[in-house]
Amino acid sequence: MNPEITLLTNSITMIWLVLTAALVFFMQAGFAMVEIGLTRAKSASNIIMKNLMDFAVGAIIYWAVGWAIMYGGLKEFFLMPDIPGKGALFQSWMFQVVFAATAATIVSGAMAERTKFTAYLVYSLFISGLIYPVSGHWIWGDGWLSRLGFHDFAGSTVVHSVGGWAALTGAMILGARKGKYVKVGQEVAVKAIPGHNMPLAALGVFILWFGWYGFNAGSTLDGTSSYIALVAVNTTLAGAAGAIGAMITSWFLFGKPDPSMSLNGALAGLVGITAGCLVASTTGAVIIGFIAGIIVVFSVRFIDHVLHIDDPVGAVSVHGICGVWGTLAVGLFATGRREGVTDIRGLFYGGGWHQLIVQFIGVAVVFFWVVATTVVLYMGLKWVTGLRVSEEDELLGLDISEHNAESYYGFQIFQNQ
Amino acid sequence: MNPEITLLTNSITMIWLVLTAALVFFMQAGFAMVEIGLTRAKSASNIIMKNLMDFAVGAIIYWAVGWAIMYGGLKEFFLMPDIPGKGALFQSWMFQVVFAATAATIVSGAMAERTKFTAYLVYSLFISGLIYPVSGHWIWGDGWLSRLGFHDFAGSTVVHSVGGWAALTGAMILGARKGKYVKVGQEVAVKAIPGHNMPLAALGVFILWFGWYGFNAGSTLDGTSSYIALVAVNTTLAGAAGAIGAMITSWFLFGKPDPSMSLNGALAGLVGITAGCLVASTTGAVIIGFIAGIIVVFSVRFIDHVLHIDDPVGAVSVHGICGVWGTLAVGLFATGRREGVTDIRGLFYGGGWHQLIVQFIGVAVVFFWVVATTVVLYMGLKWVTGLRVSEEDELLGLDISEHNAESYYGFQIFQNQ
Amino acid sequence: MNPEITLLTNSITMIWLVLTAALVFFMQAGFAMVEIGLTRAKSASNIIMKNLMDFAVGAIIYWAVGWAIMYGGLKEFFLMPDIPGKGALFQSWMFQVVFAATAATIVSGAMAERTKFTAYLVYSLFISGLIYPVSGHWIWGDGWLSRLGFHDFAGSTVVHSVGGWAALTGAMILGARKGKYVKVGQEVAVKAIPGHNMPLAALGVFILWFGWYGFNAGSTLDGTSSYIALVAVNTTLAGAAGAIGAMITSWFLFGKPDPSMSLNGALAGLVGITAGCLVASTTGAVIIGFIAGIIVVFSVRFIDHVLHIDDPVGAVSVHGICGVWGTLAVGLFATGRREGVTDIRGLFYGGGWHQLIVQFIGVAVVFFWVVATTVVLYMGLKWVTGLRVSEEDELLGLDISEHNAESYYGFQIFQNQ
Repeated sequence: MNPEITLLTNSITMIWLVLTAALVFFMQAGFAMVEIGLTRAKSASNIIMKNLMDFAVGAIIYWAVGWAIMYGGLKEFFLMPDIPGKGALFQSWMFQVVFAATAATIVSGAMAERTKFTAYLVYSLFISGLIYPVSGHWIWGDGWLSRLGFHDFAGSTVVHSVGGWAALTGAMILGARKGKYVKVGQEVAVKAIPGHNMPLAALGVFILWFGWYGFNAGSTLDGTSSYIALVAVNTTLAGAAGAIGAMITSWFLFGKPDPSMSLNGALAGLVGITAGCLVASTTGAVIIGFIAGIIVVFSVRFIDHVLHIDDPVGAVSVHGICGVWGTLAVGLFATGRREGVTDIRGLFYGGGWHQLIVQFIGVAVVFFWVVATTVVLYMGLKWVTGLRVSEEDELLGLDISEHNAESYYGFQIFQNQ
Repeated sequence: MNPEITLLTNSITMIWLVLTAALVFFMQAGFAMVEIGLTRAKSASNIIMKNLMDFAVGAIIYWAVGWAIMYGGLKEFFLMPDIPGKGALFQSWMFQVVFAATAATIVSGAMAERTKFTAYLVYSLFISGLIYPVSGHWIWGDGWLSRLGFHDFAGSTVVHSVGGWAALTGAMILGARKGKYVKVGQEVAVKAIPGHNMPLAALGVFILWFGWYGFNAGSTLDGTSSYIALVAVNTTLAGAAGAIGAMITSWFLFGKPDPSMSLNGALAGLVGITAGCLVASTTGAVIIGFIAGIIVVFSVRFIDHVLHIDDPVGAVSVHGICGVWGTLAVGLFATGRREGVTDIRGLFYGGGWHQLIVQFIGVAVVFFWVVATTVVLYMGLKWVTGLRVSEEDELLGLDISEHNAESYYGFQIFQNQ
Repeated sequence: MNPEITLLTNSITMIWLVLTAALVFFMQAGFAMVEIGLTRAKSASNIIMKNLMDFAVGAIIYWAVGWAIMYGGLKEFFLMPDIPGKGALFQSWMFQVVFAATAATIVSGAMAERTKFTAYLVYSLFISGLIYPVSGHWIWGDGWLSRLGFHDFAGSTVVHSVGGWAALTGAMILGARKGKYVKVGQEVAVKAIPGHNMPLAALGVFILWFGWYGFNAGSTLDGTSSYIALVAVNTTLAGAAGAIGAMITSWFLFGKPDPSMSLNGALAGLVGITAGCLVASTTGAVIIGFIAGIIVVFSVRFIDHVLHIDDPVGAVSVHGICGVWGTLAVGLFATGRREGVTDIRGLFYGGGWHQLIVQFIGVAVVFFWVVATTVVLYMGLKWVTGLRVSEEDELLGLDISEHNAESYYGFQIFQNQ
């Protein structure tokens, strides 16, 4: 090819990846706002610290070792050496580091309002530096799952389920917030602990959706791919259908359309389409998103009311469960018509059971990998630093106990609620 | 042309449209924050639901039928069929759907704090699926108004006035919030109902302005247009001049520079330049924006204090009235110097009255179209589902009555204010 | 070069500059949220007005005269004349105006809660129209400092230190907020005045970081530069390291990891890398950012507890002091390996003392220029319009006294705190 053409092609990809990486970075703000909004005022600054520092710590460790494990062939630690002409490496790292940070930050919401900050810092190091990079290597780093034919375009499993399963084990090992589940005779009374700032939670969801255009469309990794627009369209439709699905489901179950469920429904739809946004048709995207919206409502209820696991923001349901759904959906809805990129065909498009089985294997492997490693990690933290704050500190709120800070100085707030 | 050059040209346009569409999508967050900020705490979650669901419902219906009406020649319903090589269709749909959603969401603010959620959902379906696409087709879909020479580059009329007029009829048919206009003898006392969260309203305006760079500059529909930067510059200057115009006007009228008026002034300037951002000079943009900022203050006062129409956020003035001003301004300020794109020349640049008259026709046609269809729609909704919540529900706040939700759990708020 | 290639190259640069300029524009929202969050509820609407209007006034004056001084060779006032083919001018202006506005808005935070709004408006005119353009011309407009070899890639000095020094003189001349420093016998008791909305402050920092990708990477001024990704990577790492540095430092000093210090640490790291993001290696970026994070904590303490200058948001430390650090760091960490762009080499990479001395000269010159001009400006304002509101107005809060507005209508707030 003409060298000038090559140069322009590379340039388009570089600005595409840097801009979409910036969008994905901004999702950190979205996660922070969702978590703040859906929890209590007395922990808001602690949540800020967690969300700021998991990115900070995660970026540094992903630079030091994470990248080398995931993509660098166990070389390129610290992105060394610094020589001219490494633009392609830098653009790839830039795009990947924000994905690693996403996986890490998902966990924060499920462990909100009771986790020791020190433990959270160490956890962040391990998920961004080791746990995420290893399974990420298997799927995106030309590892064994990728060679098996497992397809997860933008990370329903690689990113979201990894975060979701780490959230699940974390919430289980931590135990519920005080007062969340109260034994009344033989029964357990489930207390709802409403979020203190729904406008911020909504803002967070809009920011996440906005960033998701970078997350999914940027995952072409190629600014000249003709499928960028399709990916964006599918992302839009699945998010929309997810919000509708969750709204309708909550309306049936609770009698009124529920705001926090509908917001989580949008996220569920977006997580659901993340694996299949390239291979699904627009109709497929609508169906995948709509079902994700239904799933998330039932999953949130089940985890809360049946399993009695306290996940304040619904992270396990949104990212773990809907990540599974989205990954399996590739085996159902892949159209087999993405020329020059992939030719995966799912069950509903005449591809038989093969792809679905491969998808299931990937889902199961990542589940066991993350559950096993995070259980070890959290138990280790429990033993070394302690995982949970004291009962008094929890009642006081983590803002004061962990940071000697106050989030809404001057406002009259009923702190103990 | 060299096929490699064609491919790169297409790629630049695709990433341009997807990125600017993402920016326009983000305006949904801006509209939500503005509306939340300028109304009362007891309706915030309802506003979240409206703004989330009008996008969700609107995207699905625009996929199903809206696009087919507006651009698809009554084909391409559901963007069918899914065949390779349809990147150009998907990028166009992606860019257009966020415009359709903008038109829909403008209405929400004018109908805030008293509209039944069910009615709002149905309304969203009709505006995004039918009302907006039909007039949009006339102007942007190679329809009769476009062939008449009507010029509305990024949608002062197509998007903003359509939303503004639907907001006007909605606010009129709904009636005012309880306590807004109180008869005192022969007089009507106008009560100000201040917004409960000005920082969020300001954030919303900044988000809208940020998104407007996508809205206006993306409307080149061509990533290689050499006018992209000019459009962005004009957008910047008009927004700035609008804020200044409204600040000065409010200072004269009320004795102090008013924050919510100044914020609306920035939006007024942005709406004002939306039609003419390609054809105006930078001087023209400053004048258009400044006048829009003056207009919006007088219009808000007139609609509130003379017409006694309760428009909580000033949507009719910002989007309807300033949309008209911006559209007419094309007939005044078009310089006739945009080679290869358009050669419209307005009255002040030696083009005579012709363009101004054409602009006026477009404005009038869209006004009658939207007023007629939305009156039918709202009256139908009043009859079928009911348009307005009960008096008790309104006093209680729509968060609780419509969604059984609370937006600021734990905060001491004087709910009845 | 092939004209089609030239056209595409120009197109890539145009969309790159417009999109990155939009990101930098969005930083206005970030600055507003940080300032609102870190101050008291009774001034929030005043802060909104300052941040909205410094951009509005700044954009108009930068269009009228600022650009002509900085880049236009004292021609191109008002970007005149409006002729076809001026895309390159418009894209440059668009990118530069948002930088001018950043310099202006930095000052707002240091002067929060006590400055007369009228004085602030006039100040904005002068910094965006004269003070910033003159020193900007010396460094970026092919002026004498640039010819001396001074290197400030994206504006640690040009933008941040200019804002920081104007903030310093402003805060000094204004004096502290009532009750901030209370004489107790011979001692001065320093009262902490906590911010009223930490979630908004955090959101602001995330928005600023997001925008910084535009700020730094856009400063290539060339969408086909192969160093765009490196710049983005260095920005990421320095911000992350800055947050960590400040967190650790605050932990040592205060016993707990401090949220507002950590947030400022991220900003400090970003300011620190702004000058050197092109020439530093990734290791250099981590070190520069980490040290900036340490510096900012000590600087904030020193300015507050030793100098007794009341800078509510830490603007002098973040932008002034860390701007100096970042600028000097170029003379230490420049690798001398940026082919085709620059070949600066710092002390630690075998370049000797030369570059460090040149950097120091630039830092000193800009310090004296800004201190001298802003002292004249503020003293003049003190004399003409008055710089500070009355004691009663300050106690009442600037929302009511300056704007007759209320920011959180309906919320119970202890206003006098």
